Amino acid sequence: MDDITFAVLGTGGIGRRALEVSQHKDHLTPVGACDRHGTAIDFDGLDVDELLAATEGNIDNEVATDGGTGATPADGEGGVKQHGENRGVVASSQARPSEDPIQDVIDHGDEIDAVLLALPNYEHDFIPRVADRFLEGGYSGVMIDVLKRSRVIDMLDERGDEFEDAGITFICGAGATPGLLTGAAALAAQSFVEVTDVEIWWGVGLKSGYEDNRGTVREDIAHLPEYDIETARDLSDAEIEDVIDDHDGVIEFEDMEHADDVLLERAGVCDAEDVTVGGILDVESDAKPTTTTVSVTGTTFDGETATNTFQLGDETSMEANVNGPALGYLKTGVRRNRAGEYGVFGPAELMPGF
Amino acid sequence: MDDITFAVLGTGGIGRRALEVSQHKDHLTPVGACDRHGTAIDFDGLDVDELLAATEGNIDNEVATDGGTGATPADGEGGVKQHGENRGVVASSQARPSEDPIQDVIDHGDEIDAVLLALPNYEHDFIPRVADRFLEGGYSGVMIDVLKRSRVIDMLDERGDEFEDAGITFICGAGATPGLLTGAAALAAQSFVEVTDVEIWWGVGLKSGYEDNRGTVREDIAHLPEYDIETARDLSDAEIEDVIDDHDGVIEFEDMEHADDVLLERAGVCDAEDVTVGGILDVESDAKPTTTTVSVTGTTFDGETATNTFQLGDETSMEANVNGPALGYLKTGVRRNRAGEYGVFGPAELMPGF
Repeated sequence: MDDITFAVLGTGGIGRRALEVSQHKDHLTPVGACDRHGTAIDFDGLDVDELLAATEGNIDNEVATDGGTGATPADGEGGVKQHGENRGVVASSQARPSEDPIQDVIDHGDEIDAVLLALPNYEHDFIPRVADRFLEGGYSGVMIDVLKRSRVIDMLDERGDEFEDAGITFICGAGATPGLLTGAAALAAQSFVEVTDVEIWWGVGLKSGYEDNRGTVREDIAHLPEYDIETARDLSDAEIEDVIDDHDGVIEFEDMEHADDVLLERAGVCDAEDVTVGGILDVESDAKPTTTTVSVTGTTFDGETATNTFQLGDETSMEANVNGPALGYLKTGVRRNRAGEYGVFGPAELMPGF
Repeated sequence: MDDITFAVLGTGGIGRRALEVSQHKDHLTPVGACDRHGTAIDFDGLDVDELLAATEGNIDNEVATDGGTGATPADGEGGVKQHGENRGVVASSQARPSEDPIQDVIDHGDEIDAVLLALPNYEHDFIPRVADRFLEGGYSGVMIDVLKRSRVIDMLDERGDEFEDAGITFICGAGATPGLLTGAAALAAQSFVEVTDVEIWWGVGLKSGYEDNRGTVREDIAHLPEYDIETARDLSDAEIEDVIDDHDGVIEFEDMEHADDVLLERAGVCDAEDVTVGGILDVESDAKPTTTTVSVTGTTFDGETATNTFQLGDETSMEANVNGPALGYLKTGVRRNRAGEYGVFGPAELMPGF
């Protein structure tokens, strides 16, 4: 396979880890990275080590959540505006400040095979609106997100024809869950002629990774019964800490709105309502509080009922399970795109590359 | 997805079960089936129930192992020539006798989206030679096999350019192992930046399914240290029974030459030598003697070592785990083919459809 160039939008936990993991992957060259402060672009390949060192500890390094139009100020990875306290990606000598970082990436789109949207999706139409900007800008390549919310998939599907006309291959929900675990469920389903139940149960230990993943924690809190996307967005860092303290550092989630459900339904595996996602987040320990497990129950052609399971080793971090698959699906997306397959694809339809 | 028409070559255990399982799949119409005795073709869709009833208990129902040229008499599913004892597919009112059943299928190739090669591969170049016949016959569609032996993959790869020129999408090793379990290993690998070890360990209980799967049992025996493809081929049914009795009905296999290794290597997951395949076959019980498990061990980008695992429920039969994936990969193959992607693909590169 020819070399693949890619850019990350967002230099929070996911964006930074995606850059880091890409160094271990063959044929994958990071050429762009941006956040609300600016843009780094180098088609000889970014110096990832320098970029990571310069952005370490950044807590406000997302691009604006309105897709860069300036209409809405952004929550940062920590959820608080702290423009004075850090400089985001422009702390790197490779980046320059920009009023419209996303446009910088779009303007270089001809030379970028894939764009990874490493952005928390507090406003649930944020990723679709970023996609609109790339459509308007004439981008023709792969776009890939690691979004979580089921409702976003429909919004992307509504743009399917536009993506096809533009030559965009959009891969949605391509992190851990949805993503790796959705793919595992689709594969496990192959033993059955009817799938009756898919249960995804995850464990994340995030003590040392907490600072770097506060956006993810906030997004998880929005899944608690007492919160939603909007109310979680408005929580201050101190209020987030209070929620965590109220749960003694260990928060259990049930019936999460994770897009695994609609992604499995659109792949024909089962009805969305047959999919349940839950898990346990422990911010007091790096050890996982429970083993991440996908259980797929169904009936075989010969009338038996059985459950196939997929388990992630407890030593694999959330970051490893999100970013490996994200880059794997990115590689496959580029292959599809080069073969002329455009539109919206989910992780249950694509085997990620390695 | 538009409807898919497919044909099976061979009406032994795998071919018959593939026809049966296809009845549970949407958009999949069996239009052809052949064995050494003849050919059934109906583009309105074969009557699978009638075909299965008519061929029940057939033990000599493969097409000739020379690909129908008549140069080599065929071993049947039971390995013994018993031409007088059954009539193969022509026991069905839908089939007619044929001197060259494979040519019948090739001659109707324009209307057949995919051909499933449900043939034991005693002569290790048999499947490549069947592929040659389809190439010569101008076939342009999907060919898919459930072969096991690693050495065959290279032979198919050698024909890659010819497949591309012809418009053939050839999917190899698309049953359970290689196949479903190879795909699971490739997916499980996504957490890691380096995979150090893939272990595939299967359990099959085949008491009531023994008669229908004698070809598979013979193929397995060829993996024992004392046998190879040629010597296992020459065993009589009674000698096969003796081998089984010597092992008290439970045969354990180690370091099998299963193509999972080369298929994972060609997908870039790991070196072929890092893959081991073994398992236990119990012909005295329908319960699996051990739980089929894929274990993928590797290191993450952040330096941890872990093992991800995929397990099949003990209640899923070998037939369910071979034929579900085979038809799932067939569906995906047709999608690739219609998108204009030709050549050789393995199960680690394709997410099977459902």
